[in-house]
Amino acid sequence: MIIGRVAGQIFMTINHQAYDARTLLIIDRLTPEGEPSGGYLIAVDTVGAGAGETVLILDEGNSARQVLADANAPVRAVVVGIIDDLTVLAS
Amino acid sequence: MIIGRVAGQIFMTINHQAYDARTLLIIDRLTPEGEPSGGYLIAVDTVGAGAGETVLILDEGNSARQVLADANAPVRAVVVGIIDDLTVLAS
Amino acid sequence: MIIGRVAGQIFMTINHQAYDARTLLIIDRLTPEGEPSGGYLIAVDTVGAGAGETVLILDEGNSARQVLADANAPVRAVVVGIIDDLTVLAS
Amino acid sequence: MIIGRVAGQIFMTINHQAYDARTLLIIDRLTPEGEPSGGYLIAVDTVGAGAGETVLILDEGNSARQVLADANAPVRAVVVGIIDDLTVLAS
Amino acid sequence: MIIGRVAGQIFMTINHQAYDARTLLIIDRLTPEGEPSGGYLIAVDTVGAGAGETVLILDEGNSARQVLADANAPVRAVVVGIIDDLTVLAS
Repeated sequence: MIIGRVAGQIFMTINHQAYDARTLLIIDRLTPEGEPSGGYLIAVDTVGAGAGETVLILDEGNSARQVLADANAPVRAVVVGIIDDLTVLAS
Repeated sequence: MIIGRVAGQIFMTINHQAYDARTLLIIDRLTPEGEPSGGYLIAVDTVGAGAGETVLILDEGNSARQVLADANAPVRAVVVGIIDDLTVLAS
Repeated sequence: MIIGRVAGQIFMTINHQAYDARTLLIIDRLTPEGEPSGGYLIAVDTVGAGAGETVLILDEGNSARQVLADANAPVRAVVVGIIDDLTVLAS
Repeated sequence: MIIGRVAGQIFMTINHQAYDARTLLIIDRLTPEGEPSGGYLIAVDTVGAGAGETVLILDEGNSARQVLADANAPVRAVVVGIIDDLTVLAS
Repeated sequence: MIIGRVAGQIFMTINHQAYDARTLLIIDRLTPEGEPSGGYLIAVDTVGAGAGETVLILDEGNSARQVLADANAPVRAVVVGIIDDLTVLAS
């Protein structure tokens, strides 16, 4: 699992039907301190995450299908929580 | 899932028979802003994506087999949608 | 499996219910010599690891679910041991 | 899936018995233009690929086992085709 | 699969019980020419590999469990062979 920030959304009209009712978010990967680390991924929203919010991303297909309660969903990454607070030790 | 752009196609005559009727596309990985990020992958087309189009790639084997409706397809990545538009927040 | 150090913890109130009773640790990835290598991940604690401790991380979903004894846990990475000692050969 | 070039072969006498009758090739990873990208992997040959040939690599365990028609093969990557030609768009 | 060299061992007393009877080796990742490439991973030994030996690593959970003949082993990477010789083509 990784930490990310909602950066945008993608829109498709020609697509596999499994994506018809899904919100597909563009998620910037963050460091533990909440700074962008340069990468990104596309994840299905399951918690109503809004633009700019810090979120927990589950980036594994089998887990993603369990979260969506759909054993056949062709989905790899889902947004599973909105992070209120994170504590990082000084290093 | 990631965003990519159709960059080319590969052709084989000696291959595992599962690939006989598949279109294998060379996909450049893109940043969320639509710029090439330097990497690439080979993916099976499922939406009729054409050269230069921006597409959504599903890069996990179990999901790919579900999209292809073939539990035995030895395929890891598939093109699952053509992206019409993407909204990225200023950061 | 990789070696990491407990660097912090994340807290969520809006999340998938599978995370309600889990401790989610921020783990800095370490080199074999115990130095931070720059990356991190989020892992579920299973051994009571405390801040600053060096730990063994199992970073695969199916294994993580077996460790949690929950075939449906949407979890990819777990802390499976606290490392007392490590021997590295001179190279 | 990725594109690679056959760079060599490895030989073992002490090994898990599942590898006894397999040819294990060293595969250099290539860019879509056919240039080495710096990485490599070890893959089981299934098409009789020879040294220097450009090949398609399937790098996922479940798919690899289907290609080998052996549900228990402890193999992650297989060579599944010899690439005759590849078309890359100017970018 | 990748090539590595046995660089050390880790020791734990507080750990998931599945690791109680396992030897956990620190493996430096190697290039095909046998030079360290900078990365490492932790793998369970299955062939009695000693310090400094060049080995074949299988880095996928389902395969690792088949090698260990334990469908529930929470293990991702195993040492599956000791490499006697490797042939690399001039490039």
